[in-house]
Amino acid sequence: MSQSSTLKHKIVVTRNLGPDVMPILEGRTEIDLVVWPEDRACDREWLLRNATGAAALVIMVSDKIDAEVLDAAGPGLRAVSTMSVGYEHVDVKELAKRSIALGYTPDVLTEAVADVCIMLALMAGRNAKQTAALVNEGNWPQFSWAPFLFCGPQLSAPSPSRQRTAGFIGFGRIAKATLARLVPFGFTRCIYGANPNSTRQGSSDDSDKELADRLGLASVRRVDLDTVASESDVVFVLAPGSPSTYHVVNEEFLRRMKKTSVLVNASRGTLVDSDALARVLKEGGIWAAGLDVVEGEPNIPADHPLVREPRCVILPHIGSATNETRVDMASLAANNALAAALGEPMPCALNL
Amino acid sequence: MSQSSTLKHKIVVTRNLGPDVMPILEGRTEIDLVVWPEDRACDREWLLRNATGAAALVIMVSDKIDAEVLDAAGPGLRAVSTMSVGYEHVDVKELAKRSIALGYTPDVLTEAVADVCIMLALMAGRNAKQTAALVNEGNWPQFSWAPFLFCGPQLSAPSPSRQRTAGFIGFGRIAKATLARLVPFGFTRCIYGANPNSTRQGSSDDSDKELADRLGLASVRRVDLDTVASESDVVFVLAPGSPSTYHVVNEEFLRRMKKTSVLVNASRGTLVDSDALARVLKEGGIWAAGLDVVEGEPNIPADHPLVREPRCVILPHIGSATNETRVDMASLAANNALAAALGEPMPCALNL
Repeated sequence: MSQSSTLKHKIVVTRNLGPDVMPILEGRTEIDLVVWPEDRACDREWLLRNATGAAALVIMVSDKIDAEVLDAAGPGLRAVSTMSVGYEHVDVKELAKRSIALGYTPDVLTEAVADVCIMLALMAGRNAKQTAALVNEGNWPQFSWAPFLFCGPQLSAPSPSRQRTAGFIGFGRIAKATLARLVPFGFTRCIYGANPNSTRQGSSDDSDKELADRLGLASVRRVDLDTVASESDVVFVLAPGSPSTYHVVNEEFLRRMKKTSVLVNASRGTLVDSDALARVLKEGGIWAAGLDVVEGEPNIPADHPLVREPRCVILPHIGSATNETRVDMASLAANNALAAALGEPMPCALNL
Repeated sequence: MSQSSTLKHKIVVTRNLGPDVMPILEGRTEIDLVVWPEDRACDREWLLRNATGAAALVIMVSDKIDAEVLDAAGPGLRAVSTMSVGYEHVDVKELAKRSIALGYTPDVLTEAVADVCIMLALMAGRNAKQTAALVNEGNWPQFSWAPFLFCGPQLSAPSPSRQRTAGFIGFGRIAKATLARLVPFGFTRCIYGANPNSTRQGSSDDSDKELADRLGLASVRRVDLDTVASESDVVFVLAPGSPSTYHVVNEEFLRRMKKTSVLVNASRGTLVDSDALARVLKEGGIWAAGLDVVEGEPNIPADHPLVREPRCVILPHIGSATNETRVDMASLAANNALAAALGEPMPCALNL
């Protein structure tokens, strides 16, 4: 077979995925691999120019995939493969219209994000923002100890007689992995709700009972959002970003929460009304908040009302940022693209 | 009975313990209560002057209790009651010589400190110092995302095939409460050691097996310190401060640790050689450290070598600082003093 008759499948990758992952795509004779060469987000012009004739694109959350990009790629494009679980940056209607598949990376980041949920619940409750700043700014020597200084509500139950209730908005894999981690902290009760506009999905009473039995909890129960707000010691926001979940944690929700409670958001910033949260924190309506995401990120300046709140811990969307998980996400994104380019089923495709 | 014949027992308290706790001592006709009136550490001169004739003293870690204080109190002193689990600030030999009891507050802070151990392991591993600073200093908008930016080793096992080992120096109640919390993070193996100079105490192979079975771990094993260093993914330092534990984590120990491992110290600063830790962190010998205590605290300036290390998270000794735990500690300290003053057995006395 002459070289000219070999059909090469073009895969365009918008970021170098590192030495653990790139070999999945490199050196395969059937693949024509094109990788954005710089260590920063891919230029859109570069993508539009290089997408031409591609069978698959491996993209990051910073790449906006719309009709223009799909037109540039042309009719040979079989799949867009994003290295993320979210896909707000992809016009899924345009993909569906053209029968282009969407690969994504759920599941592999479950444990990493659940870790961050526990970290944020602890950091918020334990005043980590103020106490770490005290040391980092060199104020520990002048610090005057007092029996109740920096004290807030304890995440764990200090004794079996003091109960703890975990609340969740959204109750998928990350929520369940977070709940499992809370059991040895003395949590005995789990309540969860979804946006009232969404249809009921997933959990049934049966599986709630099974989950409670498996984790050794007194109860796992689906309730309305008012109950999640009023009865939880910590509320974890873990539902996808979408118009139906926009500001599901609004001022009314926050005002129903206990004064000793903590809010954690590790899903999407749009689910929480930042202005309402800043107001309620300032007035002591809840104890603290821990956020891995903020509406409008990354444009969150130092004078943002939440950055200025001493008991609002904010991290720059690092929920999945561990070596193991990012390698798993990048590998899955590469394998999704490779499978699509070769005409095989993708390991993880979204049902469009 | 005339008022003059009523024998009142004097209790001196070196800090107001707040509205939840002071009623334990206030308004009791048999007690003459004297409380340091200011909201700062008690002046030694005040204590020496007021201790005279006391039956019991309730003290804080900031109060040094030595022969001079005991002499000032005089022969009626039955007990010193410290609101702490540590008692390095108390001259226990002097107490024993005079048959004065020492009340302290172990157990009640177990859960709060175990919470901080998990928080520090997560914060160190997840680069919380750098990532939180990025947001707090207003640098999120300029921040350039990259697939592996801020990524370190994940605390939890990303899949059941990737094992995690927890290591402990000191294996008392706080260590066991920390270990229990690590199980849903995917830890399957626990190894622990004590200072080689200390005599073996507490755990036997039998109770190790029972603990492993109860927590669902593959193994719990006492090993030498070299093995704790070389095989642990996280090392938790949770042994008491004493001459025999001084710098038990030294340069040799740190050099044996895995490059991907994390060190957590929530016991006493003297157990870890700060200069060695700063050197090993700088050279990448271990991934990160999370410290609630530092040798020489609180005199830790902003240019301290550990404060300057970007992956060394430091908190100002807040291990027990939650409302619930500090109320429990203060209540126990008050009840210890009350019982001693009334000639009853103290709820929690140290065996001198």
